[in-house]
Amino acid sequence: MTRNSTSDLLDELGLMAGAADAARDIALSYFRRPIHVEDKEDKSPVTVADRSIEAMLRGRIAERFPEDGIFGEEEAPRNLESPRVWIVDPIDGTKSFVTGHPLFGCLMALLDGGTPVLGQIDMAVLNERWQGARGRPSTFNGQECRTRDCTALKDAWIYTTNPFAFPGASRAAFEAVAEQARLTRYGGDCYNYGLLASGHCDLVVETGLQPFDFLPLVQVVQGAGGVITDWDGRPLGLTSAGDVIAAATPALHEAALKHLAGQAPHA
Amino acid sequence: MTRNSTSDLLDELGLMAGAADAARDIALSYFRRPIHVEDKEDKSPVTVADRSIEAMLRGRIAERFPEDGIFGEEEAPRNLESPRVWIVDPIDGTKSFVTGHPLFGCLMALLDGGTPVLGQIDMAVLNERWQGARGRPSTFNGQECRTRDCTALKDAWIYTTNPFAFPGASRAAFEAVAEQARLTRYGGDCYNYGLLASGHCDLVVETGLQPFDFLPLVQVVQGAGGVITDWDGRPLGLTSAGDVIAAATPALHEAALKHLAGQAPHA
Repeated sequence: MTRNSTSDLLDELGLMAGAADAARDIALSYFRRPIHVEDKEDKSPVTVADRSIEAMLRGRIAERFPEDGIFGEEEAPRNLESPRVWIVDPIDGTKSFVTGHPLFGCLMALLDGGTPVLGQIDMAVLNERWQGARGRPSTFNGQECRTRDCTALKDAWIYTTNPFAFPGASRAAFEAVAEQARLTRYGGDCYNYGLLASGHCDLVVETGLQPFDFLPLVQVVQGAGGVITDWDGRPLGLTSAGDVIAAATPALHEAALKHLAGQAPHA
Repeated sequence: MTRNSTSDLLDELGLMAGAADAARDIALSYFRRPIHVEDKEDKSPVTVADRSIEAMLRGRIAERFPEDGIFGEEEAPRNLESPRVWIVDPIDGTKSFVTGHPLFGCLMALLDGGTPVLGQIDMAVLNERWQGARGRPSTFNGQECRTRDCTALKDAWIYTTNPFAFPGASRAAFEAVAEQARLTRYGGDCYNYGLLASGHCDLVVETGLQPFDFLPLVQVVQGAGGVITDWDGRPLGLTSAGDVIAAATPALHEAALKHLAGQAPHA
């Protein structure tokens, strides 16, 4: 049996869907209930919900695909030398989760030879799920989704989670893009990329993301017709620095890169 | 028949609930469907959904309480000299609405002698509604809700919609508060005040709001145990400048005001 045949990737998509269902149950059992919030070394918050979900995701992957690697937010990496590596982020948007805000998601991806071939964004409270798979159109709740045909910055609706996340000169680069755009909105984490894949916004520009934040987005965006790279236009992988741009069209991507290329704070 | 007896305010609460139900139907009929977005003079977006909802809200109010005044976002004020004035914001968070994002709300309030006596925040997609009425506990989906017992900035979770909305020295004042807080999150519009009323976040600091943005929040926050004023600690009314702080407790409100008082950009 060879991996990565169509039927194999359907197996993996099925595993992701089942794991996301289980992650919803865990997340919702803690949501808006008193929960101890621990501040990690990088000051980002973590809870027993994050840890329980990641343990469940890892368990399901290891049981079904024991030879694959796993890279997640809360536990140590495993088997990263494997040709196939799963990426898991149990709760993207823990700041939202701990403040009773529905905009948190469970993220999963599968890398093959370092390239994302599957991706999933799952929003527990909102009952919304995006899936992307190499060679197939991305889906939103099972229906094909497409980015919007926006090619110019002046028409673009931009999302970014935290405008203060841009250090040094990168802030001016971001603002050069945002100033030309039609509209800028803040907050959102992974959800912004789902909205982009469904044609609701056109551009997401961020920095300081971790591989478990951005790798699950890649196939969702690409399979919907969008472009997602680092600020210098390079493909995203496990060693990318975490400066991310996603655009609805190649032309819009190029227009934004004119301001961002060479300005990435972590490159 | 005198207005403002308990039974009268129950009538008005009922009108608000029915109007919000109808507003949900209109909003959801346009949500995530192609819609023409017009940029107003202040560059904020508006759509046929905003205008249809406001017309419906005004029609219901005028039919039931023809002598009352009405102040809304999209149409000219009416009867502002009346002792009772209704406040309506058909879609708070139009930026969210037009980008397919569920965080938009329909806001209503009733002022009596210039003081907010009723308030309502209704989130169509999320099926969440907060109501506040003078002398009664605020409710979330019909259940009493309370702010959290947070009294110190270091323990506070702060929300603000747009950190770039703080002009001049007010930005430093906001950042002085945010730096001491445990966590800061962006985006959200009216939803942040509902989360505060339900004890999920502790502090909301904003500037540049309009009366239809902030007056509907007042009774929701106060009836849940919170404090909501301008940056100098004054009660909010139709002529307030739009610099708003809401806090879970009087002590937290006082701690934040130490940084904000005298720094309001529009006062």
